Amino acid sequence: MIANSLYQPVSGLKLALGAGDGSRDRGAMVLDSLARIDEVDPRINAMTVVIPREAAMANAVAASGPLAGIPVAVKDIYDTHDLTTSYGSPIYAGHQPQSDAAIVTLLRRSGAVIVGKTTTSEFAYMAPTVTRNPCDMERTPGGSSSGSAAAVAAGMVPFAIGSQTGGSTIRPASFCGIAGYKPTFGLLPTVGMKCFSWSFDTVGLFAASVADVAYLAQALSGRQLAVGDAGDMPVVGVPESYPWTKASANATAVLDVAIAAIEGAGGRVKRIRFDSWMADLIDAHDTIQSYEAWRALGYEYDHRRNDLSPLLAGFMDRAGLVDTATYAKACALMGHARDRLAQLFEGVTALLTPSTPDEAPVGFDSTGDPAFNRNWTLLGCPCVNVPGLQGERGGSIGVQIIGRPWDDARCLSAAAFAERAIAAYRA
Amino acid sequence: MIANSLYQPVSGLKLALGAGDGSRDRGAMVLDSLARIDEVDPRINAMTVVIPREAAMANAVAASGPLAGIPVAVKDIYDTHDLTTSYGSPIYAGHQPQSDAAIVTLLRRSGAVIVGKTTTSEFAYMAPTVTRNPCDMERTPGGSSSGSAAAVAAGMVPFAIGSQTGGSTIRPASFCGIAGYKPTFGLLPTVGMKCFSWSFDTVGLFAASVADVAYLAQALSGRQLAVGDAGDMPVVGVPESYPWTKASANATAVLDVAIAAIEGAGGRVKRIRFDSWMADLIDAHDTIQSYEAWRALGYEYDHRRNDLSPLLAGFMDRAGLVDTATYAKACALMGHARDRLAQLFEGVTALLTPSTPDEAPVGFDSTGDPAFNRNWTLLGCPCVNVPGLQGERGGSIGVQIIGRPWDDARCLSAAAFAERAIAAYRA
Repeated sequence: MIANSLYQPVSGLKLALGAGDGSRDRGAMVLDSLARIDEVDPRINAMTVVIPREAAMANAVAASGPLAGIPVAVKDIYDTHDLTTSYGSPIYAGHQPQSDAAIVTLLRRSGAVIVGKTTTSEFAYMAPTVTRNPCDMERTPGGSSSGSAAAVAAGMVPFAIGSQTGGSTIRPASFCGIAGYKPTFGLLPTVGMKCFSWSFDTVGLFAASVADVAYLAQALSGRQLAVGDAGDMPVVGVPESYPWTKASANATAVLDVAIAAIEGAGGRVKRIRFDSWMADLIDAHDTIQSYEAWRALGYEYDHRRNDLSPLLAGFMDRAGLVDTATYAKACALMGHARDRLAQLFEGVTALLTPSTPDEAPVGFDSTGDPAFNRNWTLLGCPCVNVPGLQGERGGSIGVQIIGRPWDDARCLSAAAFAERAIAAYRA
Repeated sequence: MIANSLYQPVSGLKLALGAGDGSRDRGAMVLDSLARIDEVDPRINAMTVVIPREAAMANAVAASGPLAGIPVAVKDIYDTHDLTTSYGSPIYAGHQPQSDAAIVTLLRRSGAVIVGKTTTSEFAYMAPTVTRNPCDMERTPGGSSSGSAAAVAAGMVPFAIGSQTGGSTIRPASFCGIAGYKPTFGLLPTVGMKCFSWSFDTVGLFAASVADVAYLAQALSGRQLAVGDAGDMPVVGVPESYPWTKASANATAVLDVAIAAIEGAGGRVKRIRFDSWMADLIDAHDTIQSYEAWRALGYEYDHRRNDLSPLLAGFMDRAGLVDTATYAKACALMGHARDRLAQLFEGVTALLTPSTPDEAPVGFDSTGDPAFNRNWTLLGCPCVNVPGLQGERGGSIGVQIIGRPWDDARCLSAAAFAERAIAAYRA
């Protein structure tokens, strides 16, 4: 890591195992988290609000379950009954919901201690936040789950909740050098998340490693998703080219390292080619997201347009022009593409691409490009950012493992295989 | 109609056409609505809150669009930025949302004037409200959209918005003698509706007649749904028996009248038989709804259980026992059933059943039985309650027209045909 770095992620799985055998008491985990937030967040700006120490300790002591006493941060796009929730917008400054989002309920029922809320791009769209990238303080952490990714990368919390409608989980995970997991659409509940697009909005998870994020996913979903130290040798499908943005030479070099590592560890790589419908989905994503945001954020646009960022206001101006016939056509295209997905995965365990077209841009004018993520969000596929690699300018770039819908366990297992292979290859 | 009746629905389509040619000014429609509310709502109790007269008039004057100046009432399960929203629960007494639900935005953008909110069963589940049935003040109006159905039946508003997760639109429409329409799942946005079950929650619409409700649906959806005075002669599929509750002799007699009327008007009737998967869906609905409500209403259950009705608290106690494997199995069953739906509709325009197993029960202990509605909600099919018939005890019972998903236009057209046929048959 380069000099200007506060990168120091903590393994939530190790904390969970440690708490289980009594080697660490629960209050200590929360105190460590609050201390790290005090130490580094004034420079990183990942948190919008932090729970008072007494409340955190009371929650930790009362906690039981697979996440008992483990500190978790939640993107400020989810309602919390005890922490103000502003959705990244001045329209909701100081807003105090009366209830918890469903994912917050699931965290609390699993014993997690929600130590604070994290920055989000305004309504989880594209406007940059004040948050810095712990890997390199002069770069964007990506968005829209900027604060959640940064909080995990800096070791403020072992786990954080984000969301993804385009590339809002995989992109910041890639830029911040941590694991990010966007489950199959519908696997985790979005109730109490501020809606941008009901066809795409998905809960996202962040952790230090793939094994960590899989443990969190299992605790929240009740599904068998945790990964072991060994798994089946995966066959990964690698596209010959992409119909969206071209990958940079930098990202291509990183992908080549991942491929060599996977092959070196006994996995296999199969070249695949996208059919033309994959290219058509790029516009379909834009159409569907626009049509739905025009309705989901209708109150904010119709009554508070001047309080929207120019970026979002401009998007909404255009969104209002998408008519129902155009939307219905895009939805039909999405349906056909989902029907054809099986072909794409024929003979492979999962697909492998760069997570982002390049490492994180320097500066804070943009949250980066979600082009490598949008189609998979539209298709509802599970996606995992596998960390562990750097680009030629020293920034993190992840590789993305993409699975069949509802095949999350194999997708996470293949991602964990890739992660171990990369670590071994670099060693 | 029997003596104890305040049944007097108003045609919204006539109001819209009248407003269009300038024969009625817009303020007059709102004043008529408010006057009727003042006159009859003290006895019916359909409204939870009514907009001040000055605000209503200001909205009416500023309105433009297909619903310009037309008064509409909205079920108090949808957020409104200018009217308190309590979701039928004391937990949210006096709660003032900061924004509008998407369907409220669409109403306002179409020029409608939201004159008030209507009673809902607590969180749109089963607990009865204080509302009475305008057709017979000693009976339940049905639920959970009790107030919306009653407000339209009593002529307080020509249009009202409800919702359906089991039978919450079709049932009260049947009991109150008005048209009710549950669109294809996903056709109208549920953003800003208090969630009970994300797989089933659907916006529902009420109006005096099928032509009225189709006009409203077209205005809100931007789809070609309005029905003309003539349409293709439908072929309706009538099940030989039902795997859920048996229809009463009363409901069967009403269905026979509808069949005779449809055949008399030139339509055709084809007997159909359900396969065994239709019976399996009854439990699947309960499983999916329970699993999702346990998460969607998790905050309320975990923190405010004592403020839930015994009916809902008991449901949630049981809901917490549904594990993810059981839920996943029920979702798979739902997926298979949706794949097989085409068979069920082979050679028919739509299906025809009673809307409810009997006319509205006397008294207020229950909102009636949604057994004839739940499976169609699970399958995402459009459903229309066709009014115009009474049972032997003088209460309304509707018949239900059920269409293929996304075939809403033909479903509404077939329902309008049935409605005209029934009117002609009785004349």
